[in-house]
Amino acid sequence: MRRAEKGKVYLVGSGPGDPELLAVCAVRLLETADVVFHDDLVSDEVLGLVHPSALVTSVGKRCGRPKITQAGINALMIESARAGRSVVRLKSGDPLIFGRAGEEIAALRGAEISFEVVPGVTAALAAGAMLGLPLTDRKSASKLIFFTGHHAAIRLIAPQSGVARCPRMRHWSYICRDVTSVGLRRSLESLA
Amino acid sequence: MRRAEKGKVYLVGSGPGDPELLAVCAVRLLETADVVFHDDLVSDEVLGLVHPSALVTSVGKRCGRPKITQAGINALMIESARAGRSVVRLKSGDPLIFGRAGEEIAALRGAEISFEVVPGVTAALAAGAMLGLPLTDRKSASKLIFFTGHHAAIRLIAPQSGVARCPRMRHWSYICRDVTSVGLRRSLESLA
Repeated sequence: MRRAEKGKVYLVGSGPGDPELLAVCAVRLLETADVVFHDDLVSDEVLGLVHPSALVTSVGKRCGRPKITQAGINALMIESARAGRSVVRLKSGDPLIFGRAGEEIAALRGAEISFEVVPGVTAALAAGAMLGLPLTDRKSASKLIFFTGHHAAIRLIAPQSGVARCPRMRHWSYICRDVTSVGLRRSLESLA
Repeated sequence: MRRAEKGKVYLVGSGPGDPELLAVCAVRLLETADVVFHDDLVSDEVLGLVHPSALVTSVGKRCGRPKITQAGINALMIESARAGRSVVRLKSGDPLIFGRAGEEIAALRGAEISFEVVPGVTAALAAGAMLGLPLTDRKSASKLIFFTGHHAAIRLIAPQSGVARCPRMRHWSYICRDVTSVGLRRSLESLA
């Protein structure tokens, strides 16, 4: 069972909030890390697994309410690892889907900090599991598409608008147009 | 911590094979189930967590080499649950993506057997985590598409061909056409 190593950063998925859905190694890393930087959406039950002596900091950036910059988060992770601490960057869902893991990984690589990614259960899979609803049917589905209602959708559809603003998760018409752009023309237009 | 309940079926994702990537509750269910029916692709390390007194049966159906029918698997699960046993149906990756969970869930619902789905780490996420490679970049990606090289791809592209045969994972030209059908025209044509 792996303990969190000193001088290393772990990008850990906290899943949908239920600690029983965490990966086994995610629990062990939370129990042994010196420092935890977490998203706003991480549940109290998951944070309850962190060792009492660890330094726990919320670095959440909720849509439309900036709190800390991405550069600031990167700097915190890098400084902590350079100071010889074991660091968990705890992200809601899975770290690699629709988050800023790419920017964090680039910063860690640039600073030559050792890192590791621990997958979590992403929201779509968690919802499907909760409902007992398969996300694909082998009789008809050869692909599965996850969409985000956030920034990139606006950017992709209306590049002429320049720097995208946060659509506050309510741009159903944009999302619908993005959805229909991959051929799902009828059944999903009810989103708009 | 949940123990496996008698008379209930758990559709559990075994992830890519590393027991440390199993969900916490998946481990507990494997340790306490009376009966385990598993796919061929489940690793020995994961199967090693099953209680020694449990009845463990491989119900794997590798492509092109039929071993047991889906109806046979459904019947085994239903009979075991009706006999008052706690049953884990252990599936590689995540149970809800590109497998037969839909058919198994329909059979369990039809037989009025209680069931629960426990997510696992699907292959694409596991590969991304291993490589430290984000699957989305918020500067450019608003959707993430998973493709399968199996049956449905052939069916969708060539419905006139009737009942699809297993393409043995080598129909890159079909996969390529399916990929390009959602607008990824250039970068992925190298698949073919």
